[in-house]
Amino acid sequence: MTPFLQLTLALAIMISLAKLGGYLSFRLGQAAVLGELLVGIVLGPSILDFLHLSIFTDQHLHEVIQELAELGVMLLMFLAGLELHISELIKSSKVAILAGVLGVVFPLGLGAIGGALFALAPKNALFLGLTLAATSVSISAQTLMELNRLRSKIGFGLLGAAVFDDVLVVLGLSAFTALVTPSVGETSNAGMVFAVILRMTLFLVISSVVGYFILPSLTKTIFSLEISQGLIAFVFVTVLLFGWLADTLGKMAAITGAFLAGLWFGRTTYRERILNGISIIAYGIFVPIFFVDVGLNADIKTLFGGNFGLFLGLFLIAILGKVIGCGLGALLSGYSPLEALQLGVGMMSRGEVGLIVASVGISEGYLTTASFSAIVGVVIATTLLTPPLLRSLIQRESVIREKLAESE
Amino acid sequence: MTPFLQLTLALAIMISLAKLGGYLSFRLGQAAVLGELLVGIVLGPSILDFLHLSIFTDQHLHEVIQELAELGVMLLMFLAGLELHISELIKSSKVAILAGVLGVVFPLGLGAIGGALFALAPKNALFLGLTLAATSVSISAQTLMELNRLRSKIGFGLLGAAVFDDVLVVLGLSAFTALVTPSVGETSNAGMVFAVILRMTLFLVISSVVGYFILPSLTKTIFSLEISQGLIAFVFVTVLLFGWLADTLGKMAAITGAFLAGLWFGRTTYRERILNGISIIAYGIFVPIFFVDVGLNADIKTLFGGNFGLFLGLFLIAILGKVIGCGLGALLSGYSPLEALQLGVGMMSRGEVGLIVASVGISEGYLTTASFSAIVGVVIATTLLTPPLLRSLIQRESVIREKLAESE
Repeated sequence: MTPFLQLTLALAIMISLAKLGGYLSFRLGQAAVLGELLVGIVLGPSILDFLHLSIFTDQHLHEVIQELAELGVMLLMFLAGLELHISELIKSSKVAILAGVLGVVFPLGLGAIGGALFALAPKNALFLGLTLAATSVSISAQTLMELNRLRSKIGFGLLGAAVFDDVLVVLGLSAFTALVTPSVGETSNAGMVFAVILRMTLFLVISSVVGYFILPSLTKTIFSLEISQGLIAFVFVTVLLFGWLADTLGKMAAITGAFLAGLWFGRTTYRERILNGISIIAYGIFVPIFFVDVGLNADIKTLFGGNFGLFLGLFLIAILGKVIGCGLGALLSGYSPLEALQLGVGMMSRGEVGLIVASVGISEGYLTTASFSAIVGVVIATTLLTPPLLRSLIQRESVIREKLAESE
Repeated sequence: MTPFLQLTLALAIMISLAKLGGYLSFRLGQAAVLGELLVGIVLGPSILDFLHLSIFTDQHLHEVIQELAELGVMLLMFLAGLELHISELIKSSKVAILAGVLGVVFPLGLGAIGGALFALAPKNALFLGLTLAATSVSISAQTLMELNRLRSKIGFGLLGAAVFDDVLVVLGLSAFTALVTPSVGETSNAGMVFAVILRMTLFLVISSVVGYFILPSLTKTIFSLEISQGLIAFVFVTVLLFGWLADTLGKMAAITGAFLAGLWFGRTTYRERILNGISIIAYGIFVPIFFVDVGLNADIKTLFGGNFGLFLGLFLIAILGKVIGCGLGALLSGYSPLEALQLGVGMMSRGEVGLIVASVGISEGYLTTASFSAIVGVVIATTLLTPPLLRSLIQRESVIREKLAESE
């Protein structure tokens, strides 16, 4: 079989089983995304390891699937941005800042303390904390979208805090690297941090100027031209470029760029058309690939390996750090305790940014392979735990509301 | 830059320039597909060779783009199938068979004679003819779709003949291999050809049974379930599986499988929804990648290399073989001379099947590298020539019709 035929077969299996798993999960009263993630776990190295069946001989097959999955999570974050209104998001800036900052500070601090308890050197303990600080809201955003609750206090708080989270973790990583790298002079280290701040600012300014001044009129012009699916092609290209620029210029995550692109397109009069078209592309093809691919990169056997204690410790820190940190930020912003808990749980799941930071850690020697495996376990466990937990907390809220309505 | 970021940048450049080129081409009174193909030529090794710029360091970048392009041509052929009605296509079976068969016989014969004139051994001359026999109708189908003329005598004849063309070339290749391979006994060679016929029949029977009996009710069931974009995901998976089965079981081209999938979905009551959804995916993302990728695989400099005479000879044979062969078949089926010419020109363009046959030829030693380069040149030249020529012939018909209407 040619590499292309292997790809068609692998994608057909992944997409059809993802949709089947999502549907069964939905019928069982769970978020569809949970079922899609579980299909990935079953197909992945944890159980079947299907990409290593003898029919799949192409060495690059998983790389290609991975790239399609990354396009999927970008489109997912774009849709999350499209559903939110910038003005409403700005109104939630207080909770975004407080939950974003405290949601980084707590896992960082608790992780460092935990690392110290596991007898790590201070430098390495601090890095371990940093690894646990990076949240990944794509799964929570999807869960909220399924419940039709993305445009709620929780949704705005979640996505707003996620942007600050990304900014802070990138700053933290560069500050850490600057501080521990043997320097030629003090200015060069401060200069490194300054350069990262400058790049981020530059990206945010450029993307905002493009998004505010250029996108609305350009979208209108392109829509009026006789180009087959010109609007959708334009949106797709813009998502790619925003993601690319976020990473290469801003040193931030590509998905943050895609999310910002969604925010800006949400202001245009073509929002509904874009939502319709990109939803077809995202949920028809790319997003199921992403959810299954999460499982293809995970091996739950690592959870039960020799370092179960380490995994369990980091897992508790990861959960408590976010629930306490983000929850406290939400409470300080006037959220009710239940809302604060919902936000904290929504911020709990970890993903690619955490793994990227962890990869830096292992290549620079700040993390041991045991810690790395435990972090992979944390990513899997928090990812699988978030959708059902968030869903049940939101349904509990509905129950309370109904009771209140009855008692009135 | 990570491989993924390189991919996002390359795709953003390819899709945006393809759409721009297509629009300019349309405004200049040409088929949009011509502009998209020319953008590919400019970006490709002929001029800029942009994938080999120093920013693109990923060795597998072109492979990934190639696979996305192959998905694009599958979706394109699926849409062509979706636009045609099976019943109407069956009514055109006479022209499909005659134009299909004669459109293979003439290039094969003329190619063999031409090869003999270039002093090739009989075996190699015959193989050269076989290489020139494989048509590729995706570009013509796109041109007709743009002119809103796919559902016309020309469209039905074109797509019907293309299926027979694919069948005959595959049979021809296996017969050739069987005849020239030193055999252990006569039965084993006849057995090889028989096995190919059996596989083809098996694929056509299985796909027809699935398409006729299973797809309509399964489509209805899936549409009724609460699955996000379940219908589109199901169609996409089916296209992948039909393409995969066509190739692995039927030994035919994957695009023939995708075309058949389109025919079957065209019978369902969800045809319009599917057309809308897959058009967004195809023209918003994958099809522009395919058109540009044609250029990324072509180097027009080979046309003007040392073997310009050989290229010119094969080019003439390629054009005349199809125009005479398919045209004759159309005339025998009652088409007017202008219609016969349109069909012949529509069948003229060559593509991936011809290149696959040529690759077999070069690896088995039936073709020299000089012949192979000339065939690549023929693929480029016929691909670029077909859209403007077909368009002008169809517009000529419109002019004649208008004059007839005036004189009535």
